[in-house]
Amino acid sequence: MVDIIHRIGIKSTPEKVYAALTTIQGLSGWWTQETSGDAGLGGLIAFSFRSPGGDLVGKMGMTVQAAKPSQEVRWICTEGPDDWVGTSITFQLAVHDGQTIVLFGHRDWKESSESMAHCSMKWAVFLLSLRALVETGVGEPSPGDLKIDNWN
Amino acid sequence: MVDIIHRIGIKSTPEKVYAALTTIQGLSGWWTQETSGDAGLGGLIAFSFRSPGGDLVGKMGMTVQAAKPSQEVRWICTEGPDDWVGTSITFQLAVHDGQTIVLFGHRDWKESSESMAHCSMKWAVFLLSLRALVETGVGEPSPGDLKIDNWN
Repeated sequence: MVDIIHRIGIKSTPEKVYAALTTIQGLSGWWTQETSGDAGLGGLIAFSFRSPGGDLVGKMGMTVQAAKPSQEVRWICTEGPDDWVGTSITFQLAVHDGQTIVLFGHRDWKESSESMAHCSMKWAVFLLSLRALVETGVGEPSPGDLKIDNWN
Repeated sequence: MVDIIHRIGIKSTPEKVYAALTTIQGLSGWWTQETSGDAGLGGLIAFSFRSPGGDLVGKMGMTVQAAKPSQEVRWICTEGPDDWVGTSITFQLAVHDGQTIVLFGHRDWKESSESMAHCSMKWAVFLLSLRALVETGVGEPSPGDLKIDNWN
Protein backbone atom coordinates (compact mmCIF):
# COMPACT_ATOMS: atom_id res chain seq x y z
CA MET A 1 0.00 0.00 0.00
CA VAL A 2 1.31 3.44 -0.89
CA ASP A 3 0.17 6.88 0.21
CA ILE A 4 -0.02 10.49 -0.87
CA ILE A 5 0.48 12.94 2.00
CA HIS A 6 0.59 16.74 1.95
CA ARG A 7 0.78 19.49 4.60
CA ILE A 8 -0.62 23.00 4.12
CA GLY A 9 -1.24 25.92 6.46
CA ILE A 10 -4.32 28.11 6.23
CA LYS A 11 -4.51 31.51 7.91
CA SER A 12 -7.96 30.94 9.39
CA THR A 13 -9.72 29.01 12.14
CA PRO A 14 -10.14 25.22 12.21
CA GLU A 15 -13.91 25.83 12.31
CA LYS A 16 -13.85 27.55 8.91
CA VAL A 17 -11.56 24.92 7.36
CA TYR A 18 -13.78 22.16 8.77
CA ALA A 19 -16.86 23.80 7.23
CA ALA A 20 -15.14 23.82 3.82
CA LEU A 21 -14.60 20.05 4.20
CA THR A 22 -17.98 19.01 5.57
CA THR A 23 -20.59 20.98 3.66
CA ILE A 24 -21.68 20.64 0.04
CA GLN A 25 -21.27 24.39 -0.39
CA GLY A 26 -17.74 24.29 1.00
CA LEU A 27 -16.59 21.32 -1.06
CA SER A 28 -18.06 22.78 -4.25
CA GLY A 29 -16.03 25.93 -3.62
CA TRP A 30 -12.60 24.29 -3.85
CA TRP A 31 -12.73 20.72 -5.26
CA THR A 32 -15.48 20.52 -7.85
CA GLN A 33 -18.51 22.71 -8.46
CA GLU A 34 -20.49 19.54 -9.15
CA THR A 35 -20.75 18.22 -5.60
CA SER A 36 -23.95 16.73 -4.16
CA GLY A 37 -25.19 14.32 -1.52
CA ASP A 38 -24.79 14.18 2.23
CA ALA A 39 -21.47 15.45 3.64
CA GLY A 40 -22.29 14.48 7.23
CA LEU A 41 -21.06 11.42 9.14
CA GLY A 42 -22.13 8.23 7.34
CA GLY A 43 -23.30 10.17 4.29
CA LEU A 44 -22.36 9.59 0.66
CA ILE A 45 -20.97 12.54 -1.30
CA ALA A 46 -20.92 12.50 -5.12
CA PHE A 47 -18.23 14.46 -6.95
CA SER A 48 -18.17 14.93 -10.74
CA PHE A 49 -15.37 16.54 -12.68
CA ARG A 50 -15.76 18.04 -16.15
CA SER A 51 -13.43 19.48 -18.75
CA PRO A 52 -13.80 23.21 -19.42
CA GLY A 53 -15.83 22.08 -22.49
CA GLY A 54 -18.30 20.15 -20.31
CA ASP A 55 -17.17 16.54 -20.88
CA LEU A 56 -17.28 14.30 -17.82
CA VAL A 57 -13.67 13.40 -16.92
CA GLY A 58 -14.18 11.75 -13.54
CA LYS A 59 -16.79 10.79 -10.99
CA MET A 60 -16.30 9.60 -7.41
CA GLY A 61 -18.46 8.65 -4.47
CA MET A 62 -17.05 9.13 -0.97
CA THR A 63 -18.59 7.74 2.20
CA VAL A 64 -17.91 9.86 5.27
CA GLN A 65 -16.29 7.58 7.87
CA ALA A 66 -15.23 10.19 10.41
CA ALA A 67 -16.18 13.81 11.04
CA LYS A 68 -14.80 15.23 14.30
CA PRO A 69 -15.58 18.94 14.42
CA SER A 70 -12.48 21.07 13.79
CA GLN A 71 -10.24 18.00 14.07
CA GLU A 72 -10.62 15.34 11.43
CA VAL A 73 -12.54 14.28 8.34
CA ARG A 74 -12.18 10.83 6.82
CA TRP A 75 -13.73 9.48 3.64
CA ILE A 76 -13.56 6.10 1.97
CA CYS A 77 -13.86 6.06 -1.80
CA THR A 78 -16.76 3.71 -2.52
CA GLU A 79 -17.34 4.59 -6.20
CA GLY A 80 -14.99 5.81 -8.90
CA PRO A 81 -11.92 4.78 -10.88
CA ASP A 82 -10.58 1.29 -10.10
CA ASP A 83 -7.43 2.64 -8.48
CA TRP A 84 -9.45 4.95 -6.20
CA VAL A 85 -12.07 2.54 -4.85
CA GLY A 86 -11.05 1.41 -1.37
CA THR A 87 -8.57 4.23 -0.82
CA SER A 88 -9.06 6.56 2.14
CA ILE A 89 -8.87 10.35 2.22
CA THR A 90 -8.19 12.18 5.48
CA PHE A 91 -7.89 15.78 6.56
CA GLN A 92 -6.43 16.24 10.05
CA LEU A 93 -6.55 19.75 11.48
CA ALA A 94 -4.32 21.36 14.13
CA VAL A 95 -3.38 24.92 15.03
CA HIS A 96 0.28 26.03 14.96
CA ASP A 97 1.72 29.55 14.82
CA GLY A 98 -1.69 31.06 14.15
CA GLN A 99 -2.43 28.85 11.15
CA THR A 100 -4.74 25.89 10.76
CA ILE A 101 -2.45 23.13 9.57
CA VAL A 102 -4.12 20.55 7.34
CA LEU A 103 -2.40 17.19 7.22
CA PHE A 104 -3.86 15.58 4.13
CA GLY A 105 -3.64 11.90 3.26
CA HIS A 106 -4.89 9.86 0.31
CA ARG A 107 -3.82 6.42 1.45
CA ASP A 108 -3.90 2.73 0.61
CA TRP A 109 -3.27 2.89 -3.12
CA LYS A 110 -2.62 -0.65 -4.36
CA GLU A 111 0.50 0.46 -6.22
CA SER A 112 2.71 3.40 -7.05
CA SER A 113 1.73 4.51 -10.57
CA GLU A 114 1.84 7.42 -12.98
CA SER A 115 -1.87 7.92 -12.25
CA MET A 116 -1.08 8.26 -8.55
CA ALA A 117 1.71 10.76 -9.35
CA HIS A 118 -0.84 12.81 -11.32
CA CYS A 119 -3.29 12.70 -8.41
CA SER A 120 -0.58 13.73 -5.92
CA MET A 121 0.21 16.84 -7.95
CA LYS A 122 -3.49 17.53 -8.50
CA TRP A 123 -4.25 17.24 -4.76
CA ALA A 124 -1.55 19.82 -4.04
CA VAL A 125 -3.24 22.21 -6.46
CA PHE A 126 -6.66 21.55 -4.90
CA LEU A 127 -5.27 22.14 -1.39
CA LEU A 128 -4.06 25.55 -2.60
CA SER A 129 -7.63 26.04 -3.86
CA LEU A 130 -9.00 25.07 -0.41
CA ARG A 131 -6.65 27.61 1.18
CA ALA A 132 -7.73 30.31 -1.27
CA LEU A 133 -11.41 29.58 -0.60
CA VAL A 134 -11.03 29.78 3.18
CA GLU A 135 -8.68 32.78 3.21
CA THR A 136 -10.26 34.87 0.43
CA GLY A 137 -13.70 33.39 -0.21
CA VAL A 138 -12.76 32.31 -3.75
CA GLY A 139 -11.32 28.88 -4.59
CA GLU A 140 -10.49 27.30 -7.94
CA PRO A 141 -12.76 24.23 -8.16
CA SER A 142 -13.25 22.05 -11.24
CA PRO A 143 -13.93 22.83 -14.07
CA GLY A 144 -11.96 26.05 -13.46
CA ASP A 145 -9.10 24.21 -11.73
CA LEU A 146 -5.46 24.65 -12.72
CA LYS A 147 -4.60 22.00 -15.32
CA ILE A 148 -1.32 20.32 -14.51
CA ASP A 149 -0.62 17.94 -17.38
CA ASN A 150 -2.07 16.36 -20.54
CA TRP A 151 -4.55 14.34 -18.47
CA ASN A 152 -6.21 17.18 -16.54
CA MET B 1 10.71 3.08 2.46
CA VAL B 2 8.14 5.63 1.33
CA ASP B 3 8.08 7.90 -1.70
CA ILE B 4 6.82 11.23 -2.97
CA ILE B 5 5.82 11.14 -6.65
CA HIS B 6 4.33 13.89 -8.82
CA ARG B 7 3.48 14.28 -12.52
CA ILE B 8 3.45 17.61 -14.35
CA GLY B 9 3.24 18.59 -18.02
CA ILE B 10 5.26 21.45 -19.48
CA LYS B 11 4.41 23.00 -22.84
CA SER B 12 8.00 23.00 -24.12
CA THR B 13 10.65 20.62 -25.41
CA PRO B 14 12.43 17.98 -23.30
CA GLU B 15 15.71 19.73 -24.19
CA LYS B 16 14.59 22.94 -22.47
CA VAL B 17 13.26 21.10 -19.41
CA TYR B 18 16.48 19.08 -19.20
CA ALA B 19 18.53 22.30 -19.30
CA ALA B 20 16.52 23.67 -16.36
CA LEU B 21 17.43 20.51 -14.39
CA THR B 22 21.11 20.18 -15.30
CA THR B 23 22.58 23.68 -15.25
CA ILE B 24 23.25 25.92 -12.28
CA GLN B 25 21.46 28.77 -14.08
CA GLY B 26 18.40 26.60 -14.71
CA LEU B 27 18.18 25.22 -11.17
CA SER B 28 18.61 28.68 -9.65
CA GLY B 29 15.66 29.86 -11.73
CA TRP B 30 13.06 27.57 -10.17
CA TRP B 31 14.30 25.84 -6.98
CA THR B 32 16.60 28.20 -5.12
CA GLN B 33 18.51 31.24 -6.28
CA GLU B 34 21.41 30.07 -4.10
CA THR B 35 22.58 27.12 -6.22
CA SER B 36 26.24 26.37 -6.90
CA GLY B 37 28.61 23.54 -7.76
CA ASP B 38 28.74 21.09 -10.64
CA ALA B 39 25.40 20.01 -12.12
CA GLY B 40 26.95 17.49 -14.53
CA LEU B 41 27.15 13.70 -14.12
CA GLY B 42 29.09 12.84 -10.95
CA GLY B 43 29.08 16.45 -9.79
CA LEU B 44 27.98 17.79 -6.41
CA ILE B 45 25.39 20.58 -6.38
CA ALA B 46 24.88 22.76 -3.29
CA PHE B 47 21.46 24.27 -2.64
CA SER B 48 20.75 26.80 0.14
CA PHE B 49 17.34 28.09 1.11
CA ARG B 50 16.72 31.33 2.98
CA SER B 51 13.73 33.07 4.50
CA PRO B 52 12.64 36.31 2.82
CA GLY B 53 14.55 38.01 5.68
CA GLY B 54 17.79 36.24 4.77
CA ASP B 55 18.00 33.53 7.47
CA LEU B 56 19.28 30.15 6.31
CA VAL B 57 16.39 27.66 6.55
CA GLY B 58 17.88 24.67 4.72
CA LYS B 59 20.97 23.44 2.91
CA MET B 60 21.37 20.31 0.80
CA GLY B 61 24.09 18.70 -1.25
CA MET B 62 23.03 16.49 -4.19
CA THR B 63 25.36 14.18 -6.10
CA VAL B 64 24.33 13.70 -9.73
CA GLN B 65 24.00 9.94 -10.28
CA ALA B 66 22.38 9.95 -13.72
CA ALA B 67 22.00 12.56 -16.45
CA LYS B 68 20.63 11.19 -19.72
CA PRO B 69 20.01 14.11 -22.08
CA SER B 70 16.29 14.89 -22.44
CA GLN B 71 15.36 11.67 -20.60
CA GLU B 72 16.37 11.44 -16.98
CA VAL B 73 18.14 13.17 -14.11
CA ARG B 74 18.87 11.41 -10.84
CA TRP B 75 20.40 12.85 -7.69
CA ILE B 76 21.28 11.29 -4.36
CA CYS B 77 21.09 13.58 -1.33
CA THR B 78 24.54 13.35 0.25
CA GLU B 79 24.31 16.34 2.63
CA GLY B 80 21.36 17.97 4.38
CA PRO B 81 18.66 17.25 6.94
CA ASP B 82 18.79 13.77 8.50
CA ASP B 83 15.58 12.65 6.80
CA TRP B 84 16.89 13.74 3.36
CA VAL B 85 20.35 12.15 3.40
CA GLY B 86 20.24 8.92 1.38
CA THR B 87 17.00 9.75 -0.40
CA SER B 88 16.96 9.91 -4.21
CA ILE B 89 15.42 12.53 -6.45
CA THR B 90 14.54 11.72 -10.05
CA PHE B 91 13.08 13.60 -12.99
CA GLN B 92 12.01 11.36 -15.88
CA LEU B 93 11.01 13.12 -19.09
CA ALA B 94 8.69 11.93 -21.88
CA VAL B 95 6.64 13.65 -24.57
CA HIS B 96 2.86 13.17 -24.71
CA ASP B 97 0.22 15.29 -26.48
CA GLY B 98 2.75 18.01 -27.26
CA GLN B 99 3.85 18.43 -23.63
CA THR B 100 7.01 17.33 -21.88
CA ILE B 101 5.76 15.19 -19.03
CA VAL B 102 7.96 15.23 -15.94
CA LEU B 103 7.58 12.24 -13.67
CA PHE B 104 9.14 13.40 -10.43
CA GLY B 105 10.16 11.15 -7.55
CA HIS B 106 11.69 11.84 -4.14
CA ARG B 107 12.09 8.28 -2.93
CA ASP B 108 13.41 6.14 -0.12
CA TRP B 109 12.31 8.20 2.86
CA LYS B 110 12.85 6.11 6.00
CA GLU B 111 9.33 6.87 7.24
CA SER B 112 6.12 8.68 6.47
CA SER B 113 6.18 11.90 8.52
CA GLU B 114 4.73 15.38 8.76
CA SER B 115 8.06 16.66 7.44
CA MET B 116 7.66 14.46 4.36
CA ALA B 117 4.08 15.73 3.88
CA HIS B 118 5.45 19.30 3.98
CA CYS B 119 8.10 18.40 1.39
CA SER B 120 5.54 16.72 -0.87
CA MET B 121 3.43 19.88 -0.96
CA LYS B 122 6.53 22.04 -1.38
CA TRP B 123 7.80 19.93 -4.30
CA ALA B 124 4.45 20.40 -6.07
CA VAL B 125 4.84 24.16 -5.71
CA PHE B 126 8.43 24.02 -7.00
CA LEU B 127 7.36 21.90 -9.99
CA LEU B 128 4.85 24.64 -10.86
CA SER B 129 7.82 27.03 -10.57
CA LEU B 130 9.86 24.81 -12.94
CA ARG B 131 6.98 24.88 -15.42
CA ALA B 132 6.67 28.67 -15.17
CA LEU B 133 10.42 29.08 -15.73
CA VAL B 134 10.46 26.88 -18.84
CA GLU B 135 7.20 28.19 -20.32
CA THR B 136 7.56 31.89 -19.51
CA GLY B 137 11.22 32.45 -18.55
CA VAL B 138 10.30 33.38 -14.96
CA GLY B 139 10.12 30.86 -12.11
CA GLU B 140 9.51 31.36 -8.39
CA PRO B 141 12.70 30.08 -6.70
CA SER B 142 13.55 30.48 -3.00
CA PRO B 143 13.56 32.94 -1.28
CA GLY B 144 10.64 34.20 -3.42
CA ASP B 145 8.87 30.81 -3.38
CA LEU B 146 5.25 30.39 -2.38
CA LYS B 147 5.09 29.66 1.36
CA ILE B 148 2.77 26.77 2.08
CA ASP B 149 2.65 26.47 5.86
CA ASN B 150 4.16 27.71 9.16
CA TRP B 151 7.44 25.93 8.35
CA ASN B 152 8.17 27.47 4.97
